[in-house]
Amino acid sequence: MSFDLSLNTGTTPKLSLQEAVDAVAAAGLRHIGPWRHLLEQAGGAEKAAQIISGAGLTATTLCRGGFLTPADAEGRSAALESNRAAIREAATIGTRELIMVVGGLPSAAHLLGGTGDRADRSVVDARARVADGIAELVPYAAEHDVRLVLEPLHPMYAADRAVLSTLGEALEIAAPHPAETVGVVVDTFHVWWDPQLQQQIARAGREGRLASYQVCDFNLPIADDALKSRGMMGDGHVDFPTISRWVADAGYTGPVEVEIFNREINDQDAAVTLETMKERYAELVKPFLRAASADASSAPTSSATV
Amino acid sequence: MSFDLSLNTGTTPKLSLQEAVDAVAAAGLRHIGPWRHLLEQAGGAEKAAQIISGAGLTATTLCRGGFLTPADAEGRSAALESNRAAIREAATIGTRELIMVVGGLPSAAHLLGGTGDRADRSVVDARARVADGIAELVPYAAEHDVRLVLEPLHPMYAADRAVLSTLGEALEIAAPHPAETVGVVVDTFHVWWDPQLQQQIARAGREGRLASYQVCDFNLPIADDALKSRGMMGDGHVDFPTISRWVADAGYTGPVEVEIFNREINDQDAAVTLETMKERYAELVKPFLRAASADASSAPTSSATV
Repeated sequence: MSFDLSLNTGTTPKLSLQEAVDAVAAAGLRHIGPWRHLLEQAGGAEKAAQIISGAGLTATTLCRGGFLTPADAEGRSAALESNRAAIREAATIGTRELIMVVGGLPSAAHLLGGTGDRADRSVVDARARVADGIAELVPYAAEHDVRLVLEPLHPMYAADRAVLSTLGEALEIAAPHPAETVGVVVDTFHVWWDPQLQQQIARAGREGRLASYQVCDFNLPIADDALKSRGMMGDGHVDFPTISRWVADAGYTGPVEVEIFNREINDQDAAVTLETMKERYAELVKPFLRAASADASSAPTSSATV
Repeated sequence: MSFDLSLNTGTTPKLSLQEAVDAVAAAGLRHIGPWRHLLEQAGGAEKAAQIISGAGLTATTLCRGGFLTPADAEGRSAALESNRAAIREAATIGTRELIMVVGGLPSAAHLLGGTGDRADRSVVDARARVADGIAELVPYAAEHDVRLVLEPLHPMYAADRAVLSTLGEALEIAAPHPAETVGVVVDTFHVWWDPQLQQQIARAGREGRLASYQVCDFNLPIADDALKSRGMMGDGHVDFPTISRWVADAGYTGPVEVEIFNREINDQDAAVTLETMKERYAELVKPFLRAASADASSAPTSSATV
């Protein structure tokens, strides 16, 4: 069945992998997108794979590789090594889709606990290092049948987390590589504002690179911890019907992941979160995820034909 | 003299127009970019014009028109009326450049004290209303010899303040209109992250629409009031040398305005702010604002030739 709902474990950060898997199964869902630290806590990727498949679930993505922007040789080498490990882990838990948050500027690296040259603010150079890093990882990813899924992040995170801010730029970095090895993810929180969103989603579909669709709302005011400004679908300002139509028009039929960093949601009972998630998905997302051909008359503009 | 430094009064929000003018003159500067409420407080645009010219200063911009996104007839009519008044005020204080913050989504209008349909999250429709509003204002602006200067705002403000998030999209909305009547402003805080920035600045130059260059830094962490995350040049993560080179390569030779919303800077003595502003400008901006022809050998890539 297509468009299955998947819980990204960033939504339930207090749960272990086993607890998250149990909560997902109890909610009647069959998919989960785990973060790497949960695999480690569970005793490694093999063990995590058993926990996931033991409950009859499938992993939709692994979060996350990336942080490819260190300018120094040591930082760069460590980043590549960490990404190779992430590729192996993705393969082990049975997903092809490794989400890549590409990293920010050296000038902001210290804010996330890393080192970095606080004078180096060149976003142009940082993007070039991302492209180089991806190129370096592609053979290893292909060998493990894993796809590096580039995630454009909201520009409010461009300095510290990802110098990749638009789907168009993600597709440019992906372009030199095979579509089965480098893809992109559409996360509504990050890209809803982009005036080129419709055309770039259509392009991602045409190029066979649309690897994941993640839904979560953009709340205002921005939370005091800006990372926690993500909201449950319907609570913020994202136009889910329109973006979901564009995604479906682009030919996407895969799972839909919900990844919400939000203090209130992260603190509440996961069963409550999962129920709300299912309701909002059924109301705001799923009805609009019909293939273009089945909906040609009501879709205002078919981006697939642009 | 080109590239003159100008104080945008958003940087010194506690000062009246007279006080801001006095501070600017005392700092040895000759330019000021006032906000509209200061004109009103001063007793109207005529009076404001006397205050500005009385100190030997010139107005570089007027902030701001815009907020053209109401979906209801009443809100739309009020917005157009307010913009016509802003056009007259700009002409009266002697600047051609009326900065336009185009407005956000109806779903977020209540956050800024307005009304609006909280269900209306269509950014596509809101942008269309911006284009319509600009088209409606163009004849009036032309008649008063004023330019509507579209300001792309950082996407973190797309929901509540401006559905216009990129220079490229601003140029698309400007395209149907004469360059002397619809222009764009490059504000480093808002656009530094844009992967298309160099090419769109070059395009703005080619099209004769580069009406203003505003400098201010992007600070992290994002302030609890997100609007106050702007910083003094050098305190955050913006690469001023690179962007300034692109602006100069595009042929811009006008004034450079400093507009910083930041609690600490806004609270401190304006004389201190102005001195720091001059130092940072001299260090991080001005040396890179050389015309492309004078700097062809050292400029890494001349965007003017792209």
